Amino acid sequence: MDYRFSSRVTALKSSVVRDILKLTQGKDMISFAGGLPAEELFPVQAIREAADRVFTKGASAMQYGLTEGYLPLREQLCERMGHKGMNVRPDEMLLTTGSQQAISLIVEVLTEPGDTILVERPTYLACLQVFEMNGLNVIAAESDEHGIVAEDAERLIREHRPKLVYAVPTFGNPTGRVWSTERRQQLLEICSSYGVPILEDDPYGEIKYDVNAVYPTLFALDQQAGRSGSVIYTSTFSKTVAPGLRTGWAMGPAEVIAMMAKAKQAADLHSSAIDQQIVSELLDSFPLDEHIKVISASYGERMREMQGLLAGQHIEGLRWIEPKGGMFLWLELPEGLDAEALLRASVQKGVAFVPGSSFYAYDPQRNTARLNFTYNIGAKTALGVERFAEAIREFTARS
Amino acid sequence: MDYRFSSRVTALKSSVVRDILKLTQGKDMISFAGGLPAEELFPVQAIREAADRVFTKGASAMQYGLTEGYLPLREQLCERMGHKGMNVRPDEMLLTTGSQQAISLIVEVLTEPGDTILVERPTYLACLQVFEMNGLNVIAAESDEHGIVAEDAERLIREHRPKLVYAVPTFGNPTGRVWSTERRQQLLEICSSYGVPILEDDPYGEIKYDVNAVYPTLFALDQQAGRSGSVIYTSTFSKTVAPGLRTGWAMGPAEVIAMMAKAKQAADLHSSAIDQQIVSELLDSFPLDEHIKVISASYGERMREMQGLLAGQHIEGLRWIEPKGGMFLWLELPEGLDAEALLRASVQKGVAFVPGSSFYAYDPQRNTARLNFTYNIGAKTALGVERFAEAIREFTARS
Repeated sequence: MDYRFSSRVTALKSSVVRDILKLTQGKDMISFAGGLPAEELFPVQAIREAADRVFTKGASAMQYGLTEGYLPLREQLCERMGHKGMNVRPDEMLLTTGSQQAISLIVEVLTEPGDTILVERPTYLACLQVFEMNGLNVIAAESDEHGIVAEDAERLIREHRPKLVYAVPTFGNPTGRVWSTERRQQLLEICSSYGVPILEDDPYGEIKYDVNAVYPTLFALDQQAGRSGSVIYTSTFSKTVAPGLRTGWAMGPAEVIAMMAKAKQAADLHSSAIDQQIVSELLDSFPLDEHIKVISASYGERMREMQGLLAGQHIEGLRWIEPKGGMFLWLELPEGLDAEALLRASVQKGVAFVPGSSFYAYDPQRNTARLNFTYNIGAKTALGVERFAEAIREFTARS
Repeated sequence: MDYRFSSRVTALKSSVVRDILKLTQGKDMISFAGGLPAEELFPVQAIREAADRVFTKGASAMQYGLTEGYLPLREQLCERMGHKGMNVRPDEMLLTTGSQQAISLIVEVLTEPGDTILVERPTYLACLQVFEMNGLNVIAAESDEHGIVAEDAERLIREHRPKLVYAVPTFGNPTGRVWSTERRQQLLEICSSYGVPILEDDPYGEIKYDVNAVYPTLFALDQQAGRSGSVIYTSTFSKTVAPGLRTGWAMGPAEVIAMMAKAKQAADLHSSAIDQQIVSELLDSFPLDEHIKVISASYGERMREMQGLLAGQHIEGLRWIEPKGGMFLWLELPEGLDAEALLRASVQKGVAFVPGSSFYAYDPQRNTARLNFTYNIGAKTALGVERFAEAIREFTARS
């Protein structure tokens, strides 16, 4: 049989980076590429006990469930979100297979192929894949250390009239940046005046190294301003509990959530009922907020460790801004250094990372790289950074 | 914010039936509407023990997994499929969130909006939703008690050149029909000569009341004929283990599976890693085939029970063909009786079912109904059938 594939799936760029990273499965390879949380911090025992309580409920726990998701978990999440200044009812919330599915469903219900979407520059790799699959034109507003540059966003919105704005205002992936409250307010005002909804993706918001720092979400600011309804928010338990449980959620106006549920019914009927019940039981008995503080403190240490190791290599032209949360260091490499070429050389030496080009919809800044510091620790991180620095030196020595 | 929704999601018919069925949540309501398997037959203890073994593995079991799915489970499934005459390698298989997701992904990678898809008449309700969401024109070939009518299928394929054929040859939903081997061969030959791939959906194939009956899948027949590659097959553990585990799979040529994996990566990165590992542990230790025999025997009994109860009501003009497997009775109601009107009256009396019209892409046969007999038992089934018969009698007395 001669298969012809749809334009949406062939439109997905066959990624050079993905092909190289496939070579990084070897035993001696140290990978800073993945976005993997630290396994040793998963609350294994608590999850196990929660699962046991779910199975004690017997067969009904294993039956088909609601497309919208397990109601007690939605109720718990509504309460949890309330503590962060986001007030929603269960019918304004949909449980999803990680926040990736929430992004995919929102795009399905709010855009047509050929529509335009505004993102930050650079932005999350896997959301770009969703936009490609859905035939969207991506336009990217400049961002700096305070967040998206409002003037640039407004100019692009005025010129291109996007259907949706995608934003990761707190510890963005790949940059780790936090938007200032002022920038948040500016974007909200612009989007509100042009009638463009915002998809706020917040997988890392709780992983803040300074426990006392407060970063209000766009969703909360929108509600505070009484403008409620222009932000659809998504987050996940993948970084705060464990990704294998694949439990994320979306919040927004009930009419948007109802449409997403319709699309989800066609997509997979519902996400794992077992996983949702495990998370629900866990929230009932496990001090998740204390656990998140432990994770955040540990990630802060790992970030400083990697930062120290990189600084210790004294590589001229290597720059970064210290992140205040999240799981990544975003590096600017010495000028003229192409990170994709560097990746090839690095893999030879036994270390992997993601070249920054993957995070740009177009016009990539080629001398950038994303390094994950949460998965590896100690000697492994040290050896990985050494190999990485060695690879850079070979390039800079050559030029 | 004034939301405008995409044409694909607004194209989903707002279902009258769904609206009525929402009223069926009451305590006294007896529902034959859902496609729910019998909870009391879920292997709860075995699943619990399997889960416990998964959690014993510790944190790595809860990390991000492969988009293609947990490799050991794919290997086990390949072996299992081999015993049914379907020979595939792990790279020819993708694990999904139930078979619903497999259907959705196959449609995404093989069709464009505006393309045509051929189905049986009638066919599975939730696949029609996927086709609508994806902007497909649905054409429906007649089918009789031997399966799809090959001449009608060929005529439609010649005239409309569909991109894909969707078929449920064994215990189709809603009809419970089994295609004869001859009809299977005929469709395979037609599709092969016109170059149209077939999506074979087989969620019920193992639930056969006669344990010795053998119904070769289209996938197996295609391989036997050495024509390998024109069938993409999907099935699920939802009916043989438990639906809450949301574990299904698709099999097909490696290039198709690779494209589906690309689409799945954008859709949700991967399905629940925990669920896949639980199923894998279960397959290692639990006699699943023996368990399927128990389920099948019990469902056969329930089918005969409901059949006897319906026959005992002596309703003139009520007809059905005794199914050989699956979970549903497909009824032809007295002529002129509109099943949607009957549903309204039935719900008043405290019993629900799905009107047949929901299973037709167009030109529904309105005097048809699907009754599930696996979820309720004993006195409840008897009372439900009584209420159902009463509602019918009111209509037929009136006319």
